[in-house]
Amino acid sequence: MACEPFADFLQRFKADRQHGASELARQALVWLGQSVTELACLDAAARRALRDQVGQLTAARPSMSVVAHLLQRWQQQLDAVDDAAQLAAAATQLVALSRQAVDDCVTYARQLISPQQTLLTHSCSSTLMRLFSSLRGMDCHIVVCESRPLCEGVSVVRQLDDWDLATTLITDAQAGLYTAQADLVMVGADSLLSDGALVNKVGTRLLALAAQRDNCPLYVVAESFKQRPPAAGEPVLEQMAVSELGHDLPSSRLANTYFDITPADLISAWVDERGVHRRFSPML
Amino acid sequence: MACEPFADFLQRFKADRQHGASELARQALVWLGQSVTELACLDAAARRALRDQVGQLTAARPSMSVVAHLLQRWQQQLDAVDDAAQLAAAATQLVALSRQAVDDCVTYARQLISPQQTLLTHSCSSTLMRLFSSLRGMDCHIVVCESRPLCEGVSVVRQLDDWDLATTLITDAQAGLYTAQADLVMVGADSLLSDGALVNKVGTRLLALAAQRDNCPLYVVAESFKQRPPAAGEPVLEQMAVSELGHDLPSSRLANTYFDITPADLISAWVDERGVHRRFSPML
Repeated sequence: MACEPFADFLQRFKADRQHGASELARQALVWLGQSVTELACLDAAARRALRDQVGQLTAARPSMSVVAHLLQRWQQQLDAVDDAAQLAAAATQLVALSRQAVDDCVTYARQLISPQQTLLTHSCSSTLMRLFSSLRGMDCHIVVCESRPLCEGVSVVRQLDDWDLATTLITDAQAGLYTAQADLVMVGADSLLSDGALVNKVGTRLLALAAQRDNCPLYVVAESFKQRPPAAGEPVLEQMAVSELGHDLPSSRLANTYFDITPADLISAWVDERGVHRRFSPML
Repeated sequence: MACEPFADFLQRFKADRQHGASELARQALVWLGQSVTELACLDAAARRALRDQVGQLTAARPSMSVVAHLLQRWQQQLDAVDDAAQLAAAATQLVALSRQAVDDCVTYARQLISPQQTLLTHSCSSTLMRLFSSLRGMDCHIVVCESRPLCEGVSVVRQLDDWDLATTLITDAQAGLYTAQADLVMVGADSLLSDGALVNKVGTRLLALAAQRDNCPLYVVAESFKQRPPAAGEPVLEQMAVSELGHDLPSSRLANTYFDITPADLISAWVDERGVHRRFSPML
């Protein structure tokens, strides 16, 4: 099957609210790898076009460092390798590396959860969904914030139900009622900044403040590809269409920032493919 | 016009999500005063019935101390006064006292706001609406949390727009993005506990935690009738129908607690009809 035109892929990639940052990064690598295999020849013009596409994909999801990180790693190959097949293989390898890193994160995060516990989470993280899938049938209770505006928490609860896990869906505003009774808060990440601060779906910062207040540990589960390179500077917190809020008000009266930053001192531990770190452990 | 039957009034009173605690308390007093004027005679049976109605109205809104407080004051008259007209007048006087207290709160709260400032608020407080009405046309910016599940923040923004005030409506989860740029947070109250802790629409606690983190002062504007008598014990946080969340999930998977408690150490000052108190000043 021929590769989807870049403009179409970019548009979907930019608008995607369903998939997490890692999954989107892998989708971009798959697209780039496939498009390379379809090239007549990997000449200078083709390389320029690919570099431009990498730039556009990276810019499309500025809050997601894993996109920048994995695509940058692939671009290093693009600069170094002459053979199209080798370059496509590099994309496949990076996808596999990313998947393995997530699996290893899940293995370590799993060790933090015991039966009878109540776990509180926010939004939908594909890493946490893999973790929850490994808990199937466990006698624990997972409280999920709905995560406005699009309320992806609802589909999380549906999936957990299918996995025989006890759940409660709450509005984001109710998070502060649950941190005192939860054993732990666990969230994924869109990015981790160089000091360990967490860029994640908006509402995470409030949840983390309540968790700290109530002495409830908060764990961030994210493979190290999500670490933002220090040279990348301050992250941009993506704004999405205010129509997503669903309110009948002039758009100038509405705000829809999708991410917030949770400072490192609110985080009890960072779980990555290397283990559980009580202090942030940068890879870069 | 004859008084609405008690059962009908009670049902509306219990289900009301539009009006604040003070307004509801006044509505109850108006109903009781009117029902007294319609009595054939104020005999022991009539007094018993009235006492029972006071009890039912108080129990219907357990998070709203102002209801308990004002109705208790009226019941003291019921126990002391023989004349129906005098008892009806006592209800009218308590309504006037409540209104005056709110007006005086607004006068003091108004002095805390200057032009060019950004004010962040949550939910809809009738006291704050009176305050905002006094700001008409002022060059300030009011950021309003939507306040899930019913999003009464939307109608707040519509009203502020009519009053030529610049507004931004945000999801509750975005509150933590705005406390760093706001000059003050101002909220009303459903109740104040004996140590100054605030019972208010759920989400207030998270907003207060973010305000403290960002050194943004938080003011509670509430007449002293909203103080919960120490003898009343722990407040009940009302649960409302989970259908209000609007999610297609089994009701056993949903929670809809309407109020939360913001501890006193997160509150910069309490504004009541006597002034602005940097330390909580109980009336009882």
